[in-house]
Amino acid sequence: MAYRETDLVRQRKVAQKSGLLHAAETLVREGGFGALTIQAVAEGAGVGVGTVYRYFSGKDELATEVFKRATTREVAAVREALSGPGGAATRLAVATEVFAQRAFSAPKLAWALIAEPVDPAVDVARLQYRKTYTALFETVVANGVATGEFAPQNPGLSAAALVGAMAESILGPLANPVCNAETIAALRLFCMRAVGAQC
Amino acid sequence: MAYRETDLVRQRKVAQKSGLLHAAETLVREGGFGALTIQAVAEGAGVGVGTVYRYFSGKDELATEVFKRATTREVAAVREALSGPGGAATRLAVATEVFAQRAFSAPKLAWALIAEPVDPAVDVARLQYRKTYTALFETVVANGVATGEFAPQNPGLSAAALVGAMAESILGPLANPVCNAETIAALRLFCMRAVGAQC
Repeated sequence: MAYRETDLVRQRKVAQKSGLLHAAETLVREGGFGALTIQAVAEGAGVGVGTVYRYFSGKDELATEVFKRATTREVAAVREALSGPGGAATRLAVATEVFAQRAFSAPKLAWALIAEPVDPAVDVARLQYRKTYTALFETVVANGVATGEFAPQNPGLSAAALVGAMAESILGPLANPVCNAETIAALRLFCMRAVGAQC
Repeated sequence: MAYRETDLVRQRKVAQKSGLLHAAETLVREGGFGALTIQAVAEGAGVGVGTVYRYFSGKDELATEVFKRATTREVAAVREALSGPGGAATRLAVATEVFAQRAFSAPKLAWALIAEPVDPAVDVARLQYRKTYTALFETVVANGVATGEFAPQNPGLSAAALVGAMAESILGPLANPVCNAETIAALRLFCMRAVGAQC
């Protein structure tokens, strides 16, 4: 009996922490990390402030957790696009579109993840997130160079450049999301030209 | 006489503040913003800690001032390269090389300016710095599109993408600065292909 009870407590804790993170991400989706406060998370999750502190040391840890959860999802979507059917050029084009479309579907969240000035702990996680993206893009660039679809180039450098290009160029359009289809097409073409894809 | 004395005091203050900023930048060149402390700045400038606080409210203000001074210089160098002789393709190529060469000549400082996790106040200045760069590059891209040197494209989006590409792709090489000439050439070619320059 004792074991089963402990199990239940553990499950409830996992569920409660997940609920807090969900409430926290909802705040970031609406107003960026600037809207994330322990008080607002407690209200959003329908618990007391003390309960939030039972799971997180403070706002910075909560922000870092929200960042990691959200970016893990974004990276997974891009990874899936890059492992889809077709040659390297097709997969790179689709991944670029997936990145941009997802950003436009939650512009405040995308801005918060990419560029919002925030605690250094989130900046540290951001550098890691960009490295993870770069590793994914390096594989597809190397693949395209090997098959002759792309120009000869240093795949690692080009991959980092693509990640930087995508992140930086989406920021302006995210602040004023009109003509999203044109922005996405322009970004795709930039990336295709940048790797020297035959289009 | 009173007026002349006030003038002298003012001059001395300007000189002292400039000396403190010089000492602060020297620390950042050697160890990034992480090496910047009020104590170390005071020691470097040969003054007491209290004197530093007479000019700066604290470390964050000092870091932001160092950031602004250093990036103003970097932006001026790139602006000069972009206003040099030759067509848009030549000027963009030279500007890319100037950016990268300057970064390699002070790799710790470049890393600190571009990506070191640091106080949000510096992040705010970073966003402004990238906007300033983007505006410079937008002019040369628009110029190249107008003369037919570059492919038709949205100059604002491409300019932001170039700035992001340059910043992100230099980070890895800055951490391990070998074969800098190859890195610079690779970055230049990436940017040239990205705008669809005839090379």
